[in-house]
Amino acid sequence: LMNTCCITSGCYHRYANLLIFIMLLTLTILTIWLFKHRRFRFLHETGLAMIYGLLVGVILRFGVHVPQNMSNVVLSCAVNASPATLLVNISGRYFEYTLKGEVSRGKGHQVQDDEMLRKVTFDPEVFFNILLPPIIFHAGYSLKRRHFFRNIGSILTYAFMGTVISCFVIGLTMYCFVSFMKVVGQLGGDFYFTDCLFFGAIVSATDPVTVLAIFNELKVDVDLYALLFGESVLNDAVAIVLSSSIVAYQPAGDNSHSFEAMAMLKSFGVFLGVFSGSFALGVATGVMTFTKLRDFPLLETALFFLMSWSTFLLAEACGFTGVVAVLFCGITQAHYTYNNLSPESQDRTKQLFELLNFLAENFIFSYMGLTLFSFQSHVFNPLFIVGAFVAVFLGRAANIYPLSFLLNLGRKNKIGSNFQHVMMFAGLRGAMTFALSIRDTATYARQMMFSTTLLIVFFTVWICGGGCESYAWPFRIWYNFDHNYLKPLLTHSGPPLTATLPACCGLLARCLTSPQAYEVWAYSILLKGTELTLGEHELVIRGTRLVLPMDDPVEPPTTVTLPPPPSPPHSDPHRHRL
Amino acid sequence: LMNTCCITSGCYHRYANLLIFIMLLTLTILTIWLFKHRRFRFLHETGLAMIYGLLVGVILRFGVHVPQNMSNVVLSCAVNASPATLLVNISGRYFEYTLKGEVSRGKGHQVQDDEMLRKVTFDPEVFFNILLPPIIFHAGYSLKRRHFFRNIGSILTYAFMGTVISCFVIGLTMYCFVSFMKVVGQLGGDFYFTDCLFFGAIVSATDPVTVLAIFNELKVDVDLYALLFGESVLNDAVAIVLSSSIVAYQPAGDNSHSFEAMAMLKSFGVFLGVFSGSFALGVATGVMTFTKLRDFPLLETALFFLMSWSTFLLAEACGFTGVVAVLFCGITQAHYTYNNLSPESQDRTKQLFELLNFLAENFIFSYMGLTLFSFQSHVFNPLFIVGAFVAVFLGRAANIYPLSFLLNLGRKNKIGSNFQHVMMFAGLRGAMTFALSIRDTATYARQMMFSTTLLIVFFTVWICGGGCESYAWPFRIWYNFDHNYLKPLLTHSGPPLTATLPACCGLLARCLTSPQAYEVWAYSILLKGTELTLGEHELVIRGTRLVLPMDDPVEPPTTVTLPPPPSPPHSDPHRHRL
Repeated sequence: LMNTCCITSGCYHRYANLLIFIMLLTLTILTIWLFKHRRFRFLHETGLAMIYGLLVGVILRFGVHVPQNMSNVVLSCAVNASPATLLVNISGRYFEYTLKGEVSRGKGHQVQDDEMLRKVTFDPEVFFNILLPPIIFHAGYSLKRRHFFRNIGSILTYAFMGTVISCFVIGLTMYCFVSFMKVVGQLGGDFYFTDCLFFGAIVSATDPVTVLAIFNELKVDVDLYALLFGESVLNDAVAIVLSSSIVAYQPAGDNSHSFEAMAMLKSFGVFLGVFSGSFALGVATGVMTFTKLRDFPLLETALFFLMSWSTFLLAEACGFTGVVAVLFCGITQAHYTYNNLSPESQDRTKQLFELLNFLAENFIFSYMGLTLFSFQSHVFNPLFIVGAFVAVFLGRAANIYPLSFLLNLGRKNKIGSNFQHVMMFAGLRGAMTFALSIRDTATYARQMMFSTTLLIVFFTVWICGGGCESYAWPFRIWYNFDHNYLKPLLTHSGPPLTATLPACCGLLARCLTSPQAYEVWAYSILLKGTELTLGEHELVIRGTRLVLPMDDPVEPPTTVTLPPPPSPPHSDPHRHRL
Repeated sequence: LMNTCCITSGCYHRYANLLIFIMLLTLTILTIWLFKHRRFRFLHETGLAMIYGLLVGVILRFGVHVPQNMSNVVLSCAVNASPATLLVNISGRYFEYTLKGEVSRGKGHQVQDDEMLRKVTFDPEVFFNILLPPIIFHAGYSLKRRHFFRNIGSILTYAFMGTVISCFVIGLTMYCFVSFMKVVGQLGGDFYFTDCLFFGAIVSATDPVTVLAIFNELKVDVDLYALLFGESVLNDAVAIVLSSSIVAYQPAGDNSHSFEAMAMLKSFGVFLGVFSGSFALGVATGVMTFTKLRDFPLLETALFFLMSWSTFLLAEACGFTGVVAVLFCGITQAHYTYNNLSPESQDRTKQLFELLNFLAENFIFSYMGLTLFSFQSHVFNPLFIVGAFVAVFLGRAANIYPLSFLLNLGRKNKIGSNFQHVMMFAGLRGAMTFALSIRDTATYARQMMFSTTLLIVFFTVWICGGGCESYAWPFRIWYNFDHNYLKPLLTHSGPPLTATLPACCGLLARCLTSPQAYEVWAYSILLKGTELTLGEHELVIRGTRLVLPMDDPVEPPTTVTLPPPPSPPHSDPHRHRL
């Protein structure tokens, strides 16, 4: 009686489901720590989460066999509608059922298979309503003022015009490929021009997460950095509204997928209406959240959290896009509300959204890895995949290079061709692209899009992301070699060679090291406490990836009054040994 | 296509639902702030949340009329089982439905009514799986070491023996009342002895939340405080396991609700098994979470959070009680893991769980207020309600007084009779009682229990809680009178009467105030900066209600070096005016 839910629906599986993901996240966290600890940075943490997800997907797919329970029953009923709530009268007792969704045609019998795989499948709406909002809010909240607003024109150009250009270029390229596939006979179902445009919209959203992580390493100009980050944050919003406008252009019951001027205008109207509505709502609630609760950080933080969340819900209830509203709410709150908060609440809100963002992000990426094997309607079409990669490449190029050229005509701080290449390849696809493509996988076209999108995300995160990460690697190797061997040999600074060379070279090392080198080194050990603290501080900032590091003035290191280096400390062990 | 979910299930209502609760929480937060700001403390914040919930419940019940949408369809099908997943074949298309639960017999047609009220109704499992865990974990996490473990014997006695005694006393008393009601003809359905015991178990859980809040005001002995708080935390765990053991004693299909020795033994076995299993699991994961991630607070906090959550899930998956496991996990983590965390992570985890606890707690209490009007199967039986209040009183008395007497035989620090009375009346019923009673409201007996429990919670939180809160009120009035009028009149300390008396009494005041009083007062104004800081510090601690304030050594106030009071400051405006 108490556990009716458990008895009828199999609690074990429900919890197994969540436990698998918690295990994945825990593994990811531990590995990230290991990587950071050893300063091994070939791969970004989201790439790591994906790999673990992949592994678990393989295990679930091929390793685990769950005996089939016969709990699924197919009813054939003479009902005309598909109601949200169904009351089923089973031998005199009423049971209430809620609609989960339509099962794709002809797959009725397949639903019973692979129970375990289905259990690790989340409702796509979970991504939109639970996981994306904190990620997008955090991106907006960490978008710092000065450099963002100084470059607002360029950012908006890339985000709006660039995304629209990219969407249409990709759509047209895909249309060519799809037409070719139809001729060759490689297409297994319908694929209309609107589907191509829709695909263009969903893969045009670049990911702010990896941009933030990678550009902490490469010390680029702060303005250019703001440009890239601002673009990647805003184009998520553009892509989401663009894709829903395209869906609005393609009426559900209508089979004429041809181009129509009126429908196009309607779509444009939807785009403008939804975007401006979401924008206005987000900014309004962001501005409204000025608080006078400075004395009570808990209340203040709670209120801040609730207001941000209600922005999302309010926007969805009004028919706008919650994610977009939350983005602008975050930007506005970072701009106005943040400064009204008490210092403790500033820390608290930052840390809270940072944690939520971290968990949601890693969850999405490990789920991405998992779906490659657990999703059961994959349509991998080699031609389509090749076409998609070409199209994404072309789309990004058509966004960056022409717009940069035009923008450079008006900018004082020109966008160099080097940086244009970086922008071209740093356009990783991430959480938003995935969420948009998994939202609807009912038709053949959508399934093919989903499978292809998955590959695009994998490729960009691993290859482009990994490439950018390891870009910094050769420099570090050189630095270490220089610091440990060349400097001690050629100057008095750095650790003495007796410490850095292996023990067998002891004699050689001793000959090559000057007495002053020991003194300087011993002195540097004295300083080590200070150094370590600073080092940790830097690490923390990198670990949290919270703010644009060039933008946010880091507290100046506390000036420690120390004796001047020339006078050697008295208790120098090396000296006495000599 | 994009918004299939919204089109079919009415997004507006889904979001309206959450928006109502966010609005409620926001209102509660603002009012709490107002109360704290004005130092008005007649009512505890949970009591406030309840009142707002009540108001919204009334509005929804009587004020809002939502036109009936005909989305509910009753199907009569020849199926024997009630499967967890249902595939419905509607004119060739398959729709997937998930089981929500059984609708009570004969209420089939009523389900369609009051759509709006049903929309604000949450699945009872939400309380157990989402809202209770953070509350209970937080209680365990804020249970500080020293005083808790010093009194562990007494705490366990109250929590285990006391709760079992209380459960049986309440059960027996209720059985007498119910038998009487049956004779009088006031009983509208079955009510067995096991139902009485179940009722005893669910109303025996006292609430740690209000205890914490109230006893910050009354400066009782720290050991006694630890006693009361420890008991209220642990008896939640005992009550939850006890109630599920009683359900296990009462087999679903069996109609013989008489007393059986074998079934009793089985129940006892279930109790021991579930309790020790949950305990072992909680402690094990708590101990395991030692971290070496000190350099990365974000990773550390995330890991900490995930481990706590996985404890809950793991326990549920193993058939133990997640809430109990989480409690012991929290206690263990406060005892061991907390000290391994970096200082920043200590703050972060504290603040995170504090926020989650705050939100969950206020959500539950406002939902409680709401259900008084929105729940549609209330059974208010005056006789049963009177009986329940008498039984709860007797049960608490049979717990506290005899056990205190026995414990005092062995204790050095005796539990005074005054404090016994406080324990007697501070046994408020809160979130756990509510969650246990709303979990199953299918039968007449359970519905009557639910309605009565609601009233008991309301009564104890408002009357007992409010009583304890305002216990400190007369003292404060006296203090103010004393400080503002008596002290200035009789001594040289305090503000001069010219400042405290109304303007019309200016002459009188001037006559009664000595010149020294001005000097002392002016000096105290100089000190005011320091005082204010300390005052705020105290408020923050009270506002967050995070730790036992006597237990946790508050930072000593920074000693400010000030000139000694006798030498009057030179720039005294009052003096010059004189």
